[in-house]
Amino acid sequence: MKNTKISNAVIKRLPRYRRYLIELRKKGVEKISSKEFSTLIGYTASQIRQDLNNFGGFGQQGYGYSVDSLYDEISAILGLDKEYKMVIIGAGNLGHAIAKYMQSSKQAFRVYGAFDINPALIGTELEGIPIMDYENIVEYVEKEKISIGIICVGGDTAQEVADKLSFAGVKGIWNFAPTDIEVPKHVALENVQLSDSLHSLAYHMNDIHKKTDR
Amino acid sequence: MKNTKISNAVIKRLPRYRRYLIELRKKGVEKISSKEFSTLIGYTASQIRQDLNNFGGFGQQGYGYSVDSLYDEISAILGLDKEYKMVIIGAGNLGHAIAKYMQSSKQAFRVYGAFDINPALIGTELEGIPIMDYENIVEYVEKEKISIGIICVGGDTAQEVADKLSFAGVKGIWNFAPTDIEVPKHVALENVQLSDSLHSLAYHMNDIHKKTDR
Repeated sequence: MKNTKISNAVIKRLPRYRRYLIELRKKGVEKISSKEFSTLIGYTASQIRQDLNNFGGFGQQGYGYSVDSLYDEISAILGLDKEYKMVIIGAGNLGHAIAKYMQSSKQAFRVYGAFDINPALIGTELEGIPIMDYENIVEYVEKEKISIGIICVGGDTAQEVADKLSFAGVKGIWNFAPTDIEVPKHVALENVQLSDSLHSLAYHMNDIHKKTDR
Repeated sequence: MKNTKISNAVIKRLPRYRRYLIELRKKGVEKISSKEFSTLIGYTASQIRQDLNNFGGFGQQGYGYSVDSLYDEISAILGLDKEYKMVIIGAGNLGHAIAKYMQSSKQAFRVYGAFDINPALIGTELEGIPIMDYENIVEYVEKEKISIGIICVGGDTAQEVADKLSFAGVKGIWNFAPTDIEVPKHVALENVQLSDSLHSLAYHMNDIHKKTDR
């Protein structure tokens, strides 16, 4: 694998390639040309070749890509051949929703514990996951070698939680709090702003509505 | 309000402006200059002025923006002064997670019903929302004037569900299925690919790790 800097745009497309490869595997397809892949995924064939060349390129002239190899390679590039131990911070509705969602995740991501400051919740369970006292989160993350913290608290405490998680040594933060947070350089951050997405949807619904005059 | 075409990039930033305005309102701040806003939100002051000028501009030279007015205007532009009736399709873990999440939504978005094909689920409830037979979805959407369908089914049936929702007359689709779907031009679409986001996070964690050689 080449070790040059890969652009964020390419990285963003990799999970999508992978999803299509999963579908192809399900259908028993063993190889695919960049042209066929293009028809399926909607990127141009040259874009696909260029994207995959970033990783050394696994295609063979006149043969195409082996679906299995490409799937394995992309999975490895994304780091999905490893295991990630996660904790959820905030055991309210949002934390509950994410715990529920993670149950459907068959991959290498597993939630080991949840944390809250509410005494009524501490000691209970969130979808089978123990809810612990937020006071003890640093100790737990260090001891259990937790690599990802999922922030499900309100906007006003999200930064404080991110600081604590970074201090405790997580390598990544998946932020669902409706706010922007900052993390040290050695911590990866991914934001999911569900309400922003819903508000964009509302805008586009009204925009279409205006245009079609309905 | 000007009625010119606003770029998608600007639209994407509006929910974020709105979030910061909510925080400012909470703190009792009544007015803010584009420079102060810039420090807070991280866009340049000129970017902020340019963005808000798209909507006719509510700022006054030497005074700045009224936090309340700006909040109201952006909310109206996003269509958040209206009410949206929603249904969830797919009452499994993902649908359950979204139903749970929507409970924490205090806004104009409310889920009225859920639909599934599983006879064991039909007639039961999802976080207090009745689960109905997917067979009857078109009739329900028409009768109850549902405007948004939330797709929480697996990737292999998501397109079929989107087609049915579009036929039934929804104006927007919020897609959580791990697949890309197509909708007619008169239907707005917003995708939330949670697994793509998680996979991006994994990539960046490993990328940082590689660089820092830890």
